[in-house]
Amino acid sequence: MKKVKVAQFGLGPIGLESLKLAATLPWIEVIGAVDKDPAKAGRPLTELTGLGSLDGLCVSRDLEQLFRETPPEVILHTASSSAATSLAQMRPALELGVNVASTCEELIFPAHKSPKLAKEYDALCRHTGARLTATGVNPGFVMDVLPLCLTGVSRTVDSIYVERVVDAATRRQPLQAKIGSGQDSEEFRAKLQTGAAGHAGLCESVALIAHALGWALDEITEAGEPVVAQREVRTKFFQVPPGRTTGIHQRAIGRRGDAEKIVLDIRMYLDAPEPHDRILIRGQPPLDVLVSGGVAGDDATVAALINTVPRLLAAPPGLHLPSDLALPKWAAPNA
Amino acid sequence: MKKVKVAQFGLGPIGLESLKLAATLPWIEVIGAVDKDPAKAGRPLTELTGLGSLDGLCVSRDLEQLFRETPPEVILHTASSSAATSLAQMRPALELGVNVASTCEELIFPAHKSPKLAKEYDALCRHTGARLTATGVNPGFVMDVLPLCLTGVSRTVDSIYVERVVDAATRRQPLQAKIGSGQDSEEFRAKLQTGAAGHAGLCESVALIAHALGWALDEITEAGEPVVAQREVRTKFFQVPPGRTTGIHQRAIGRRGDAEKIVLDIRMYLDAPEPHDRILIRGQPPLDVLVSGGVAGDDATVAALINTVPRLLAAPPGLHLPSDLALPKWAAPNA
Repeated sequence: MKKVKVAQFGLGPIGLESLKLAATLPWIEVIGAVDKDPAKAGRPLTELTGLGSLDGLCVSRDLEQLFRETPPEVILHTASSSAATSLAQMRPALELGVNVASTCEELIFPAHKSPKLAKEYDALCRHTGARLTATGVNPGFVMDVLPLCLTGVSRTVDSIYVERVVDAATRRQPLQAKIGSGQDSEEFRAKLQTGAAGHAGLCESVALIAHALGWALDEITEAGEPVVAQREVRTKFFQVPPGRTTGIHQRAIGRRGDAEKIVLDIRMYLDAPEPHDRILIRGQPPLDVLVSGGVAGDDATVAALINTVPRLLAAPPGLHLPSDLALPKWAAPNA
Repeated sequence: MKKVKVAQFGLGPIGLESLKLAATLPWIEVIGAVDKDPAKAGRPLTELTGLGSLDGLCVSRDLEQLFRETPPEVILHTASSSAATSLAQMRPALELGVNVASTCEELIFPAHKSPKLAKEYDALCRHTGARLTATGVNPGFVMDVLPLCLTGVSRTVDSIYVERVVDAATRRQPLQAKIGSGQDSEEFRAKLQTGAAGHAGLCESVALIAHALGWALDEITEAGEPVVAQREVRTKFFQVPPGRTTGIHQRAIGRRGDAEKIVLDIRMYLDAPEPHDRILIRGQPPLDVLVSGGVAGDDATVAALINTVPRLLAAPPGLHLPSDLALPKWAAPNA
C-alpha cells in the first residue's frame, strides 16, 4: 500500500510526540519536520526523537526549505493556538495543495473569531485542492465532537452540558505553565480576564456544537478564574506555595434568549481530584455519560491528530470542521 | 429549503414511532407508508398515528402501490432483522435508485452472514444511484459506532469491551416477547442455542468494529442463556412467575489467536437493576466510559434512524456501513 508522506510543523512537546507516533506507523512515511527555533533547525530528527528510522532527516527552518526536497502530502501542524497565526504559517503549504491537520485550538471553528479568514482559506483550499482541518482532545473531541456524536441517538436536544476536570500535574510543562501554575493569583486573574492567559478553544467548541446542530445562538460568553493552592503543590516542573495559582476554572456559555443551550465547564489544575469528563445531553432521551479519569490529554491529542489524517484525505478539498469529517476512529497500524 | 420525501416501510411499534417522528420534522415530507398486514393496508395514516398532518395518505400494501404516487427519496425500513429478507423487501426501491435507511440488525454489517449478498447489493446501489445503510441503538451505536468514535483519540487499541444492561420492562411488547418473557427457561435456552430466539446483530457489531479497525479476527463466537425470574415479575405486557424466563444474557467474542479482541456482553431482562452501557477501550490511553441508565432503546432507535437520513443523503451511492458515514448527530428540526 502507498504510504502517506507526512511532515511535522512545530517541535514542541506535542509536535515531538506527534512526529514520534507518525514515525512508528507503517502507513506513514515521515519526510521531514519544520521548526523556526534556531536551537532546533538543522538538527537531525534521530537526535531529537531517538528514532533510528528517521535517519537522514533534519529539521527545516521553514516550509520553503522543506519543500525543496520531497513535498509532503500532509503537514501535521502543532505550532500555535491562534487561527490567524496558524493559517499564515500554513499558507505556503495550502497554496501548493498540501493538506494540513492542525491542533490549533481556534481552527476547530475559525469562523468564531474570523468568519472572513475562514471563508478566505476555505476558498484557497478549494482552489488549490488542499484539505485543512483541526483536531485535538479539547477542543476537538471531548467537549464538542463526542457530545455531537451522542446526539446521533437524540429525538430532541434541549441543551448540552459538558464538564472536564483535568489533573494538570500529569500534563506537559507548557500546559502547567499556561494554566498559571505558581503565579500570583490576582495577577493571573487579570490575565484571564483580558484573554492573555487561559485555555484556548472553549468558545470555539460552543460555536462548533451550535453550528453542527443548526442552533442560532444570541451570544457566546466566557469567564475564567484562577484555582488557588490550599496547600503546597509540587510537580515535576513547578512548586506552588499556598495562596498562589494552581490552575484555571473556565466556563463558556452559548445562550439563546435566557436559555443556556450549551455550557462547557473546564477545571484544569495541579492535583485536581477525580479527573473526569462528563457529558449531559438534555432532551429525549436524556443522556448522562461519564469518562472516568477523563480522556488523557497529551497522549490523546497526538492520537487525535494522527487518526485525523485518513479522514482528512477522504474528504474533498476545503476547510473542514471536525464535525463534518467521517466518524473518528483509530487509524490502526494496518490502516 | 427543499424537503426530503420520505416513506415508512413497516408499521410495527418502531415503524409507527419512526413515521410519527418523521411527520413532525419540517425538513421531511412524509409521502406514504407500506405494510403488508391486511389489517393495516389501506388504512389512513391519520388514524394509525393520530397526526392530522398526514391527512390524505393511506397505508400501501407494497412498494409497487406506493410508487404509483409520488416516489420517495428515502425509505425508512423497519420490517425485519434478517439482512436477506430486508434486502429482498427493498430491492424494488433500490432498483429505482430510492435510498433506504433501515433498522435491520444484520444490515449493520451484512457481509458477516452474506458477503456475496453485501457485494451484490452494493453493486446494485452504485448502478442505480441508491444509498443504503442501517442504524439503530444496538446494533448501530452503543456497542459499535460509539466505541469506534472513542478510538478516535487512541494511540493504540489492544481490545474493546462493551457491556449493556437493559431493563426490558421499560421496552416495547415485541422486545419483551423476543427475549423470552414468561417462557419455560429450558425451552428458551434451546431456542437461544439454535438461534431461533435472542438479540440479533451482536456478531455483526463485532464484525463491524473489526472491519473498521482493520483487525483480522480468527473467529467470532456467540453464546446466550436465559435470565430466570427469582420472584414474580409483572410488566404492562407480561406476568412472569418465578423459575420462568425474564430475558437474555448474550455475549459475542471476536478472537485473534487466544486474545479476546472484542467482547460484547448484553443483558436484557425484565426489571434489570441499574441499566447502563459501559465501554472499555484497552490501549493507550485507556478509556472507561459509562452511560448511566443506558441509551434508551426505542426512543433512541427511532432517533438514530431519522438522524441517519441527512448523513445517508450526503454519501455517494452504495451500501454504507454506519462507521463509514459522517459523524452521527441530531438532525435538528431546522437541519
